[in-house]
Amino acid sequence: MLGVCYYPEHWPRDRWAEDARRMRECGLSYVRIGEFSWSRLEPEPGRFDFEWLDQAIATLHAEGLQVVLGTPTPTPPKWLVDRHPDILATDREGRLRKFGSRRHYSFSSRTYQAHTRRIVTVIAQRYGNHPAVAGWQTDNEYGCHDTTRSYGPEDLLAFREWLRAKYGSIEALNAAWGNVFWSMEYRTFEEIDLPNLTVTEANPAHWLDFYRFSSDQVAAYNKLQVEIIRQYSPGRFITHNFMGYTPDFDHFKVAEDLDVASWDSYPLGFTDMDVLPVSEEEKLRYARTGHPDIPAFHHDLYRGVKPRWWVMEQQPGPVNWAAHNPSPAPGMVRLWTWEALAHGAEVVSYFRWRQFPQAQEQKHAGLNRPDFQPDVGYWEAQQVARELEGLELPPTQQAPVALVFDYEADWVTRIQPQGREFTYRDLVWNFYQALRSLGLDVDFVKPGGSLEGYRLGVVPCSPILHEATIRALHNTQAQLVFGPRTGSKTESMGIPPNLPPGKLAEWLPIRVTRVESLRPGVNFALEWNGQRYTSSVWKEWVESDLAPVAKFDDGRGALWQHDNLHYLAFWPTVAFLRAYLGHLANRQGLQTFSLSEGLRLRRRGHLTFAFNYGPHEQQAPASPQARFVLGGRMVPPHGLSIWES
Amino acid sequence: MLGVCYYPEHWPRDRWAEDARRMRECGLSYVRIGEFSWSRLEPEPGRFDFEWLDQAIATLHAEGLQVVLGTPTPTPPKWLVDRHPDILATDREGRLRKFGSRRHYSFSSRTYQAHTRRIVTVIAQRYGNHPAVAGWQTDNEYGCHDTTRSYGPEDLLAFREWLRAKYGSIEALNAAWGNVFWSMEYRTFEEIDLPNLTVTEANPAHWLDFYRFSSDQVAAYNKLQVEIIRQYSPGRFITHNFMGYTPDFDHFKVAEDLDVASWDSYPLGFTDMDVLPVSEEEKLRYARTGHPDIPAFHHDLYRGVKPRWWVMEQQPGPVNWAAHNPSPAPGMVRLWTWEALAHGAEVVSYFRWRQFPQAQEQKHAGLNRPDFQPDVGYWEAQQVARELEGLELPPTQQAPVALVFDYEADWVTRIQPQGREFTYRDLVWNFYQALRSLGLDVDFVKPGGSLEGYRLGVVPCSPILHEATIRALHNTQAQLVFGPRTGSKTESMGIPPNLPPGKLAEWLPIRVTRVESLRPGVNFALEWNGQRYTSSVWKEWVESDLAPVAKFDDGRGALWQHDNLHYLAFWPTVAFLRAYLGHLANRQGLQTFSLSEGLRLRRRGHLTFAFNYGPHEQQAPASPQARFVLGGRMVPPHGLSIWES
Amino acid sequence: MLGVCYYPEHWPRDRWAEDARRMRECGLSYVRIGEFSWSRLEPEPGRFDFEWLDQAIATLHAEGLQVVLGTPTPTPPKWLVDRHPDILATDREGRLRKFGSRRHYSFSSRTYQAHTRRIVTVIAQRYGNHPAVAGWQTDNEYGCHDTTRSYGPEDLLAFREWLRAKYGSIEALNAAWGNVFWSMEYRTFEEIDLPNLTVTEANPAHWLDFYRFSSDQVAAYNKLQVEIIRQYSPGRFITHNFMGYTPDFDHFKVAEDLDVASWDSYPLGFTDMDVLPVSEEEKLRYARTGHPDIPAFHHDLYRGVKPRWWVMEQQPGPVNWAAHNPSPAPGMVRLWTWEALAHGAEVVSYFRWRQFPQAQEQKHAGLNRPDFQPDVGYWEAQQVARELEGLELPPTQQAPVALVFDYEADWVTRIQPQGREFTYRDLVWNFYQALRSLGLDVDFVKPGGSLEGYRLGVVPCSPILHEATIRALHNTQAQLVFGPRTGSKTESMGIPPNLPPGKLAEWLPIRVTRVESLRPGVNFALEWNGQRYTSSVWKEWVESDLAPVAKFDDGRGALWQHDNLHYLAFWPTVAFLRAYLGHLANRQGLQTFSLSEGLRLRRRGHLTFAFNYGPHEQQAPASPQARFVLGGRMVPPHGLSIWES
Repeated sequence: MLGVCYYPEHWPRDRWAEDARRMRECGLSYVRIGEFSWSRLEPEPGRFDFEWLDQAIATLHAEGLQVVLGTPTPTPPKWLVDRHPDILATDREGRLRKFGSRRHYSFSSRTYQAHTRRIVTVIAQRYGNHPAVAGWQTDNEYGCHDTTRSYGPEDLLAFREWLRAKYGSIEALNAAWGNVFWSMEYRTFEEIDLPNLTVTEANPAHWLDFYRFSSDQVAAYNKLQVEIIRQYSPGRFITHNFMGYTPDFDHFKVAEDLDVASWDSYPLGFTDMDVLPVSEEEKLRYARTGHPDIPAFHHDLYRGVKPRWWVMEQQPGPVNWAAHNPSPAPGMVRLWTWEALAHGAEVVSYFRWRQFPQAQEQKHAGLNRPDFQPDVGYWEAQQVARELEGLELPPTQQAPVALVFDYEADWVTRIQPQGREFTYRDLVWNFYQALRSLGLDVDFVKPGGSLEGYRLGVVPCSPILHEATIRALHNTQAQLVFGPRTGSKTESMGIPPNLPPGKLAEWLPIRVTRVESLRPGVNFALEWNGQRYTSSVWKEWVESDLAPVAKFDDGRGALWQHDNLHYLAFWPTVAFLRAYLGHLANRQGLQTFSLSEGLRLRRRGHLTFAFNYGPHEQQAPASPQARFVLGGRMVPPHGLSIWES
Repeated sequence: MLGVCYYPEHWPRDRWAEDARRMRECGLSYVRIGEFSWSRLEPEPGRFDFEWLDQAIATLHAEGLQVVLGTPTPTPPKWLVDRHPDILATDREGRLRKFGSRRHYSFSSRTYQAHTRRIVTVIAQRYGNHPAVAGWQTDNEYGCHDTTRSYGPEDLLAFREWLRAKYGSIEALNAAWGNVFWSMEYRTFEEIDLPNLTVTEANPAHWLDFYRFSSDQVAAYNKLQVEIIRQYSPGRFITHNFMGYTPDFDHFKVAEDLDVASWDSYPLGFTDMDVLPVSEEEKLRYARTGHPDIPAFHHDLYRGVKPRWWVMEQQPGPVNWAAHNPSPAPGMVRLWTWEALAHGAEVVSYFRWRQFPQAQEQKHAGLNRPDFQPDVGYWEAQQVARELEGLELPPTQQAPVALVFDYEADWVTRIQPQGREFTYRDLVWNFYQALRSLGLDVDFVKPGGSLEGYRLGVVPCSPILHEATIRALHNTQAQLVFGPRTGSKTESMGIPPNLPPGKLAEWLPIRVTRVESLRPGVNFALEWNGQRYTSSVWKEWVESDLAPVAKFDDGRGALWQHDNLHYLAFWPTVAFLRAYLGHLANRQGLQTFSLSEGLRLRRRGHLTFAFNYGPHEQQAPASPQARFVLGGRMVPPHGLSIWES
Repeated sequence: MLGVCYYPEHWPRDRWAEDARRMRECGLSYVRIGEFSWSRLEPEPGRFDFEWLDQAIATLHAEGLQVVLGTPTPTPPKWLVDRHPDILATDREGRLRKFGSRRHYSFSSRTYQAHTRRIVTVIAQRYGNHPAVAGWQTDNEYGCHDTTRSYGPEDLLAFREWLRAKYGSIEALNAAWGNVFWSMEYRTFEEIDLPNLTVTEANPAHWLDFYRFSSDQVAAYNKLQVEIIRQYSPGRFITHNFMGYTPDFDHFKVAEDLDVASWDSYPLGFTDMDVLPVSEEEKLRYARTGHPDIPAFHHDLYRGVKPRWWVMEQQPGPVNWAAHNPSPAPGMVRLWTWEALAHGAEVVSYFRWRQFPQAQEQKHAGLNRPDFQPDVGYWEAQQVARELEGLELPPTQQAPVALVFDYEADWVTRIQPQGREFTYRDLVWNFYQALRSLGLDVDFVKPGGSLEGYRLGVVPCSPILHEATIRALHNTQAQLVFGPRTGSKTESMGIPPNLPPGKLAEWLPIRVTRVESLRPGVNFALEWNGQRYTSSVWKEWVESDLAPVAKFDDGRGALWQHDNLHYLAFWPTVAFLRAYLGHLANRQGLQTFSLSEGLRLRRRGHLTFAFNYGPHEQQAPASPQARFVLGGRMVPPHGLSIWES
């Protein structure tokens, strides 16, 4: 189904009814509203004005539209900030992050938590049982604009409490962090500071706990809202709209309190701004389509975060916030919508109904132009709505391949990259691109999530293997491929006593005795299956009684296997992963493809979808018997085909 | 005529008389003094010492030299700053900008305004009627070192007052800025902050008003000085020495209170430091001459700012402040001087008489070396002085081409570039270079300035078309060429209700329904007049009943004409502008040239000047009948020729 | 002899005896301990715990190991910082540099000086006469992490005192700095601020005195420690472990109070991080060996700082702190050790005995792995120890070539580069590489140090020629080659009245009338000895009655000679210096070589060492009669040979 984000407060009231009618005509079912409207809901301290919102919801309801109501906490009004400056966050350089845009609060501000409770309660009480309200969105885009971590006095107090709760005694903390090093020992929790602005790098264990704490604060803040909404709005779903790759907090943990995950999909902006790493050549090639794996990556990620998921904001035209903001190639709004549905989205909701001709996002397109005419996106959305009418989408099934996605791995490698190019993001991206270029469907699974039923599992890098993760890895018949640094850290960010891969070694008997990180241009080669592969970035020295499956050109072992476990003692390129994972997939009975540039596949139930991000017609890799339910065997440029298999 | 900047306070008194004598021998007429001498004029609070300045002026006067007296406000002394720390400015990061160099004050400091009044009054009273004093310079290089905008408490108070005066009510401000977006609404003017250090970008309307306010503060501060000087020094001119491209304040507005504009011309430093955009290849080619259009651009700009204008500081040799400081090629000091005169300068004044062997500018050359010997610049200045003796310069006439230069356009596009490469500066520069490479003389005209009598007018980009601008555009027979984004904004930094080009559409019936900005390397082509042109950066979608004059390769219209109005719906390159503007110029009866690399033309009355910035002799494009009054038909490298036509 | 750095406080006590035994077995003689252990020595204010250190020293002593005891001042404990926040330093941006890593103190903090006195006294009293204690190390790596200069209130007070002591009167300071410029004059010393955060650059004389002051504060702080140790620990040597190129303080001055200089040698990290300038191509080529001149440069520098010197920390494997941390090529730990010995090191001490699996340096290798097994470095160290047993190293003799190394020159050119690429570091590096590629041994000599007995002397750049320097330059028969800008400044950072080269001109009669700095790509050529050389960066105009030895292609003189003095009026490349210095060396009777890439030579007494940094075997340039005492005529890759000549 389709939806849209709408800001009635931006438009004259006499437009509302027509807007609602035209939404229905376009084929939209859901309308998200309210998430930035605090200054209209409470224009003065304690004086509430719900009249406008009552009418707005009634107007939408009258056209049969369902409402997703957002809590207005991403934008506390100025009067609140002036009364309580302790609401504001502090950046890593120690500067206050002032009012004047959005997300100007710290998750750890006790004052803000209290006012959040107050405003959410009032709104939930008023609209909790409204028949038009189908669900709720908490806040908006947690973590956007680098707002997960804050470095102010409120954060420090909360961090100390978090540490006290975790460690119990300061002796335990000193031991866990290794504070004997450089005389960093504390006598009390009150002596602990935040890890920013130190003379040289702070203790990585100090940073890791601060990152964990900051992530937990997001979850706690979200939970605070959820609990109020559940109390006053029974039977409605609760979601939050996550952003593109924002690893600063653990989305799995936040989503434990949600019913539906959702995310905001801006393929062109994400491609231009390196939200995932895109080469300069790809940036040019995909400037008007977005990189073909960026939306899919996130669809799979957020489906892993929660089985029920939406795209809450879908790019409808050029945006305003990237360094370069091209116009999507004709057809792309339709393609992106269908791709979300192929990956299992319940609803795709466009951002936004109409371009607002003022303020920060005035150059961000909507389905309608600021002169009240329909824009390109409107027609493409309407086309999808009509196409959907003739087509029943089957439920989404489990994919054959699992990718274990580990937020903590991002923190560990970011805090201590050891080599400038070693980032978790880039490594996961290599695995994902390789799998997708083979035409395989992928599920993202959290560390410790069940791997039963998968044929192939990849763990790009999980330095810290918690007990639950180990258990889940044991309980699968899948071939499991581990990337470098997996098992390389204790829970306290130290080196395991038995050296990496730590607990994994009990099961895959190897020992990493040395690692080296390499400057781009310092390459090494390895040979596997008669083929030579070149790589860089990272290389490990392994001792083992096993015979390696592949060797570096210096004769040392590069790839190790034992039973269904495979360990890559180096930074794997997409080319290598295509070959190795393709080989394993085939051995496991999975069909793989050699897809031409820009073509991508995805299955949903008995349907197979082919998406063509390229500028030329391409043939769908469908069997001769395939029955096409949308499009045909030749997939047009920036178009798609769907067939039954 | 020629002049020089002189600092008697730097040198022993027994040198002064000889210095004055040698200035006269060199052929200099004017001497600027005093602008950094506060600590010598008022060494203790309230204790003034004018004896030295009396003598210095008398000494110059005795040799028949005319004095331009600078007010010493760019450098308040330390005792004043210590007594009143509120004088200091605050940078965008919130850091105080300390004493220890120059320009250490905020234009909005009420304390500094009071002390400015005090010191200027005392000096104007003492020297206002001195026979040697021909004119005054207020302060020095407003805006240099990023000093137009300040972000401290004094600035905030003044900004709130400025907003209150502009909007009257907070409701009007909220509506104008669109503050309903993101709950940015204010209840009172006291709630408004400065737009820096927000979590993500602040409202562009907030920024634009802050930029306007900051520009107005410069004008108000300058006016404060001017009014005092006018009172005590009747009959003397008042000027200020502007810098190379410093768009942070509206020079037209500041100059309303001046009699003479002047500017400080450092061709080599400006070329090395990208004051105007110069390619790496040009930086190498013109390392010792400066880019051939940089001085001319500013001459034309500041002649537009005020018909009477000087070069107050002319580079005389290597300077100290650029990243690289080459020695000017032999002859360039003479060439630069003549080029200023060709463009209409009343006086060219060298900075400075003698290189001072201490402090920040010790490696900045003067006409004389620190060992009291003449330096290269001395001889070249003297040569110009002698050449001028035999030549009467006619008055400067109106040029055939007008370029509408719009400071506000710089602010609008800087605040909201929408594409990283879209800068007003670069766009104006493209237009200017194209015109100058055609051998056309150009007048810079302020928005709203009269365009009567011009054959061709270019408006590189004026997003906000004020009433006066529209009127002036109507009152001309010139062909008018508008660049992209013209008319794209309301006065309040919003999108016009009828979409861009806003009010211009009443007259040139087109509608820009979408824009896109492009990463370098994402190119598009257009065809005009049978020729194909490639561009990038910016492209617009236009709806119109008109037939386009040129089309993009996707079939959409790229260039639109109606009557004498032309609209470029894309980022125009120099190559395209050369072709199109040359075509229009010819159609309007103007002769154009295809000048070889490094050669430039300029007319003053019946005289035509050719300047050769290149390393090889070039032929002057003079008619066979031309009578050469300086140089000849072959223009030597780094030389010039002048002929009567 | 060999040594190791050891942290007993990191390990269980029951390991200590075995560690000591294995150190002895490895062939180590010295063990440095204690320098980061303050929180263990004084866990609460005033409560000391020496029991563990007593036992640790006793355990080492029992195996016959000698101890170098470090004072724990690089890491004051948190309780001390909390009680006295004035201990902390302030960075140039005005931000406090917080506790949480190391070196979190300002040298100017009076509180910290007092607590330093307290802790050093207690430790020196307790261990001063211990038979195991052979020597002391003060603090650790002064200046590391940009800690020489601090910009807080304590620093300001100390700076004013330093200025008062230097100048006596404020009038003298104003005159010396040229404060009449820009009204920078002060009325009292209390008006003086630190030179950071000014609107544009502060007075270079202000900066230079601040740099000198900051350097002096390091020396004073070190002396404070030394005086206490001398009092309580007679007969023991005192050293400090300097870092790779850290020009912020004058090491010659600090070393005046030491007996032994030592330094910390990390060839791979220094190569990756541009501690000395290494081209990208060299970074790749030498990624696993380090640039072949980087260790030698520092050996020669610190031997110049003090005739007795150690390598206190020798890289034993991959480190953690560079952007890329490769594994040293097999053999390199041995090669580095031998090269230090060849250059005259008394002791080479490895950092560290065992990799600590926690905190900041957990990925920094040691001689042993965190799983208590020997790592690669252990075996290579043991090999050197065994090789040393059969070989008596002769004393180090004076080299034939002297390089005058001038810390103040780094400050002067950094404060006022005049051209972005002009850095003292790069210029010295060019001279050094040229000499070393000729196979010449080099001594570093401080300005004013004796040059008697040398055949060739180079002064890459000494802008300020103090009296002692002039005297030393007079008292030598060596050919002396001066680089550009030598003699170009007065003691007060001004231009000499007679222009550069100032006092040198009395003796080498030239006058530099103009300089120019050039953007990379703006090249010039000069011809010498029938050969053409290209350069960039810097070029001078010289007036002289002498005939130049070499000319630029514009006909001006480039190289000037008088008697034994040579002046280079340009930025010399390695290629030019190889040719010119090689020519002078040969004329002075020195044998030079044309060494193949990666091969380097060094003599110690009658022994000649050849080191092969390359990946291929190379022939040693030994005479046919040479008797090899280690290795042979063919030097293996990453290996060495030693012969008697």
